[in-house]
Amino acid sequence: MAFSLPTYKAPEFSERPLRDCPCVVLGKVRKTGVAPEHYHATSIYPEYFHLRDGRWHLLRESRMDCVVVLEKSGTLAAKEFRHLRRGDLVALGRRENGEDGIFVHTKGFDLSQNGADKFAFRTHFTREASFSIDYDELYDLLQFERQKGFIVWVLGPAVSFDKDAREAFVAMVERGYVHALLAGNALAVHDLEGALFGTALGQDIYTKKTAALGHYRHLDAITRVRSVGSIKKAIEKGAITGGIMHAVLKEKVECVLAGSIRDDGPLPEVIGDVYEAQDRMRAVAKRATTVIALATQLHAIATGNLVPSYRVIGRGRVRPVYFYTVDMSEFAVNKLANRGSLTAHSILTNVQDFVVTVERGLKRRVQGSRCKVQGARWRKERVTP
Amino acid sequence: MAFSLPTYKAPEFSERPLRDCPCVVLGKVRKTGVAPEHYHATSIYPEYFHLRDGRWHLLRESRMDCVVVLEKSGTLAAKEFRHLRRGDLVALGRRENGEDGIFVHTKGFDLSQNGADKFAFRTHFTREASFSIDYDELYDLLQFERQKGFIVWVLGPAVSFDKDAREAFVAMVERGYVHALLAGNALAVHDLEGALFGTALGQDIYTKKTAALGHYRHLDAITRVRSVGSIKKAIEKGAITGGIMHAVLKEKVECVLAGSIRDDGPLPEVIGDVYEAQDRMRAVAKRATTVIALATQLHAIATGNLVPSYRVIGRGRVRPVYFYTVDMSEFAVNKLANRGSLTAHSILTNVQDFVVTVERGLKRRVQGSRCKVQGARWRKERVTP
Amino acid sequence: MAFSLPTYKAPEFSERPLRDCPCVVLGKVRKTGVAPEHYHATSIYPEYFHLRDGRWHLLRESRMDCVVVLEKSGTLAAKEFRHLRRGDLVALGRRENGEDGIFVHTKGFDLSQNGADKFAFRTHFTREASFSIDYDELYDLLQFERQKGFIVWVLGPAVSFDKDAREAFVAMVERGYVHALLAGNALAVHDLEGALFGTALGQDIYTKKTAALGHYRHLDAITRVRSVGSIKKAIEKGAITGGIMHAVLKEKVECVLAGSIRDDGPLPEVIGDVYEAQDRMRAVAKRATTVIALATQLHAIATGNLVPSYRVIGRGRVRPVYFYTVDMSEFAVNKLANRGSLTAHSILTNVQDFVVTVERGLKRRVQGSRCKVQGARWRKERVTP
Amino acid sequence: MAFSLPTYKAPEFSERPLRDCPCVVLGKVRKTGVAPEHYHATSIYPEYFHLRDGRWHLLRESRMDCVVVLEKSGTLAAKEFRHLRRGDLVALGRRENGEDGIFVHTKGFDLSQNGADKFAFRTHFTREASFSIDYDELYDLLQFERQKGFIVWVLGPAVSFDKDAREAFVAMVERGYVHALLAGNALAVHDLEGALFGTALGQDIYTKKTAALGHYRHLDAITRVRSVGSIKKAIEKGAITGGIMHAVLKEKVECVLAGSIRDDGPLPEVIGDVYEAQDRMRAVAKRATTVIALATQLHAIATGNLVPSYRVIGRGRVRPVYFYTVDMSEFAVNKLANRGSLTAHSILTNVQDFVVTVERGLKRRVQGSRCKVQGARWRKERVTP
Repeated sequence: MAFSLPTYKAPEFSERPLRDCPCVVLGKVRKTGVAPEHYHATSIYPEYFHLRDGRWHLLRESRMDCVVVLEKSGTLAAKEFRHLRRGDLVALGRRENGEDGIFVHTKGFDLSQNGADKFAFRTHFTREASFSIDYDELYDLLQFERQKGFIVWVLGPAVSFDKDAREAFVAMVERGYVHALLAGNALAVHDLEGALFGTALGQDIYTKKTAALGHYRHLDAITRVRSVGSIKKAIEKGAITGGIMHAVLKEKVECVLAGSIRDDGPLPEVIGDVYEAQDRMRAVAKRATTVIALATQLHAIATGNLVPSYRVIGRGRVRPVYFYTVDMSEFAVNKLANRGSLTAHSILTNVQDFVVTVERGLKRRVQGSRCKVQGARWRKERVTP
Repeated sequence: MAFSLPTYKAPEFSERPLRDCPCVVLGKVRKTGVAPEHYHATSIYPEYFHLRDGRWHLLRESRMDCVVVLEKSGTLAAKEFRHLRRGDLVALGRRENGEDGIFVHTKGFDLSQNGADKFAFRTHFTREASFSIDYDELYDLLQFERQKGFIVWVLGPAVSFDKDAREAFVAMVERGYVHALLAGNALAVHDLEGALFGTALGQDIYTKKTAALGHYRHLDAITRVRSVGSIKKAIEKGAITGGIMHAVLKEKVECVLAGSIRDDGPLPEVIGDVYEAQDRMRAVAKRATTVIALATQLHAIATGNLVPSYRVIGRGRVRPVYFYTVDMSEFAVNKLANRGSLTAHSILTNVQDFVVTVERGLKRRVQGSRCKVQGARWRKERVTP
Repeated sequence: MAFSLPTYKAPEFSERPLRDCPCVVLGKVRKTGVAPEHYHATSIYPEYFHLRDGRWHLLRESRMDCVVVLEKSGTLAAKEFRHLRRGDLVALGRRENGEDGIFVHTKGFDLSQNGADKFAFRTHFTREASFSIDYDELYDLLQFERQKGFIVWVLGPAVSFDKDAREAFVAMVERGYVHALLAGNALAVHDLEGALFGTALGQDIYTKKTAALGHYRHLDAITRVRSVGSIKKAIEKGAITGGIMHAVLKEKVECVLAGSIRDDGPLPEVIGDVYEAQDRMRAVAKRATTVIALATQLHAIATGNLVPSYRVIGRGRVRPVYFYTVDMSEFAVNKLANRGSLTAHSILTNVQDFVVTVERGLKRRVQGSRCKVQGARWRKERVTP
Repeated sequence: MAFSLPTYKAPEFSERPLRDCPCVVLGKVRKTGVAPEHYHATSIYPEYFHLRDGRWHLLRESRMDCVVVLEKSGTLAAKEFRHLRRGDLVALGRRENGEDGIFVHTKGFDLSQNGADKFAFRTHFTREASFSIDYDELYDLLQFERQKGFIVWVLGPAVSFDKDAREAFVAMVERGYVHALLAGNALAVHDLEGALFGTALGQDIYTKKTAALGHYRHLDAITRVRSVGSIKKAIEKGAITGGIMHAVLKEKVECVLAGSIRDDGPLPEVIGDVYEAQDRMRAVAKRATTVIALATQLHAIATGNLVPSYRVIGRGRVRPVYFYTVDMSEFAVNKLANRGSLTAHSILTNVQDFVVTVERGLKRRVQGSRCKVQGARWRKERVTP
């Protein structure tokens, strides 16, 4: 069944009790990087602020655990504490029901409509939960998002350790199901090691045979890339001819590689300052309509922090943002599932199987519907973010 | 690539040191159920016993942690302690190198040949291990075993909780990839609940919607079966028309349902005495050439105890027995992987994905090779056990 | 702070709507072992049945997933399906609010009182949950239960693998904190192996050194016990002088060893028929006021099935039954935590640490309160079950 | 038993085959940050380099996956790739047996001596492994290291979530068992939240009660600290009067807080550039003699990368560095256990229990040995790093 977006229903600001709510009080930042007392902190939900113009303004491009700044332009922005500047005007108030001029809208999406009820709220994620429907919904969703949305994948290194999974991910990149990639140094290193040597950490990604001096492989991959200056140049020069990073750069998929203290190297494109990396990730996350995070607690939680449950598209239409977490561990998955949103899904499995299954499922769907998609046309068809 | 069995090389009994080894000493059982002192206990490997006739006799149909009895017929049998009878003659000696007339042959299979080296010994099983090759090998193996071997599946209830996995397993039963099923009451109960109501523990196995009074579903399924007398009769009467148990009985797959203290009901076919159940499982396990255990510690370990690493087929040919364990937990999987045999494989993933992937992979293979298999012909073609 | 039992508040049967509810309809069992249609199935909560005498009768000694039989003596009994006899009168009706003459009382315990609110309902169990308070509460609870209750421990083999944990458990047995033990063959085998050889599965339980021919150790332990006829006799004869089974038998702790298909041996006291074992476990579980299940999914879930959330003591007083599950895996623990009762606690840790910590904590408490307890006097002081 | 260091035995350079080995070839760095071809990469073991002066020089302050630079001063240094400067002279050669003038000494520590054999090499870490001896060894080791070594703790946030664990860790800081702390923003944030509000993520760290507006607590803690400028100032001003960070700063424990993309805030002391943070961590890791990493994959693996298996103390004496990993997951623990060194230990348990048990165990030991330690005297007694 084709996917359709659930309808968003804005709050009734013309009726009680919201009609009678005061305007939000703004407090001034006295010290750079420090919020004034009683600051309001953002959630993952759509939030409205009652401003002096008498209207309730929806915060666009939100993320949780930020403060809301009324910019000089008159627009509202969710800002991280570290980005607060002296003089910034910050929304104050912690009541979320309008009494402080702030309304957090937790029930905006009508679940009774077609398409929407399929994504029902499910709280219990265990390895024994059925997930046939999750795959089927995901195929529908990804076919929709491929043209109308912005699909962000968050990858731990595991995807690069297995031949089939790596190839399946590359195929999805090539067929337009990957619009942005968030990952770390390790994913790129092991993928490039695979491209250069067919191994990951010295082990053949198909036969599993350990190469002689295999522990040099990832360091050699790093060294080769550092010697030419960047992953991009290594690809342009033909040193790297396959794999995830190759596909991502060839298909002009947006990519942020964030550094961590675990890193060897690092690869030139990796951003060493984590707060700059977070800003770059947020620039991607702002546009996300579906996020799929695979086998990485660090990057999955970081992205979960940056992605709200909704996105404003076009002229103020509000749509949900879907967030999938795939991991082997109930513990890891529940960290993200606790977002309390209808749009958070978790699948407990090995990401190798997940990626291969999704890629094959999408192919079957497309063949089934005789959908003909030429080259990289999807990119133009996509709603410009 | 087609699968071929690795060659087995028997020990050189005509050469030193084995040539000069004494005959094995036999001790008499003085008390039923109690082995004499210095009894030899079996391993998972082929074991040879030097008898009075001057020849080394291979123990057929072995299993680990048993004692070896020389029967009046002159054949050797691996017997559980509880089956020892007063007067039984038991092999004594704990040296495994022949010095006690007992030789445990740990290196019988030549790994340098075609087919064999693919199944190299792998000790480290983590969720990040590549397993593309394991799937590919498994497709080859199952196609071979389907006609020439005896494939035993050991199932926890998880397979019955998910629509796609359940259907994939049924398809494999129908296409001859399942020769025996070892499971417990729960697998059968939830499968029958699925057949009757479309749910497992009251939750729809596709939509995940919780049924009203859903907690009655599995009890109602049990009651219906108990009321007609058996699962078999429920199927014959048309009360059960689909699912795993239906396919298993329709296709005359051998099936042992072993009881446990967790059981509700139980279903009529479930064997309440665990030692009788173990005996029945061993009767199946003796014939196994490939075992695949999915998401059940209890039944997987129990079966692992019963299955040796080799099987004697036809006129004394020895072949390996392959043992796959699929589970989400490193802990569970490593319990079985520690068998120390070339033939133990572990795959860390959700069994739902595993079963669906294997079924689809087998179908692709068969289509690819234009293999035409009619009906249930495979059963006749199989080597009679 | 000393522990005190929360007050139980019975339903208001003299008021609406319960006042006007009909009597429960009873259906006759037509076939042994088969419940009549519309049978009511029990929960873990106190349940009341409106009988012909016009009164609501509380079901004593309940367990979940049973049917309720009105015995000829006029008392109600929760019976397993397999125990239904032709002619038994079974309560019918699935509405739990009284409309069918059945009232399931989910909110009987007043949490606002002293002692009671400490055991607040907690649903989320993760490894990162704080559990200082759980230990403190448990010390209070166990000191109370030691004299006034009936403490049932359910043990997987892990406790016998570690010297400190094994000794700590023995100390708790000796000091009266263990009134019954539910376990399997493996716990007893490895404990006896420890008593005889200082090893578990051939590995020293303190130094971890692997013994020569260590894989014979557990078989030798089984053989020695089988040769004298029983664990009891082995202890009486002085063959076993320490460890868990020794303490349990010496202190006359009730003990049920239930068989499973994994068992080697088995030891003579192990019950091979799982439904007989279940009945024996239920006879113990009926009297339980606190259950602590350590590192065993099989036995923990089996016991969880048998233990209701309440127990009727003395002349109709109702008290809660506390149920602790301790395991390393969120998955395992949540299987039991889903009982939905205020009295289910889960602690995610290694049971070795848990047992040692509890034993030391209890000792500190007792020393702190200068509590003097002589010998085995506790057993007499205990409320006779 | 008191702990004593195992003896280190240097290689026999005056004997064959090492006597005849060539000098190591040095290659020049042509491009900053890029190693020359055939560079040698370091391991965790002591490595010797045969230099032009005819002597074999031990690399001091090593870490794995670095290149070895002969500095102008004539000393050898293990340098990360990113720190290579144009013109640096780098050791070339990948044979580790001396044939390239490089000898990697994997068997330097004599395990037959007192003290040493206790730390035998153990490869299998499962939740069912006995670990009484690990605790006992750790008490001995920590008492030794407290005065003679440098104990580095690596902490995930979990330790701050539980009252008893947090207090136990503070007690160990105060009694001199913590010489350095490596952690991230989250550990500090939740510890400070605990100091200010008694909660972690809004939940009371003892009663587990959720505070009203609890999700503001960690943001409020961050804001308070940012408003005064640093954690240090917040403590000096008396705003923070307890907890881990308070103890660490009061006792002048070295502390590196490394940033990650998950961070809120961050706290002022947190280092945003991960490679700067890695350098700062390495400055601490260089001096480590024992490392204990608790419930953090990111920081534990990062530290594992930085810490070799040996340390050179005083005038060229070589001693082992002990590395403990404590986590709930076999997967996490085995990532570090695969270091292949005699000195890597893993304990599978909840770190809350671990910290509490270690603190109580150390206290018992010290009381038992009537050891009198005044104030912070230990710091002077310690071997100056």
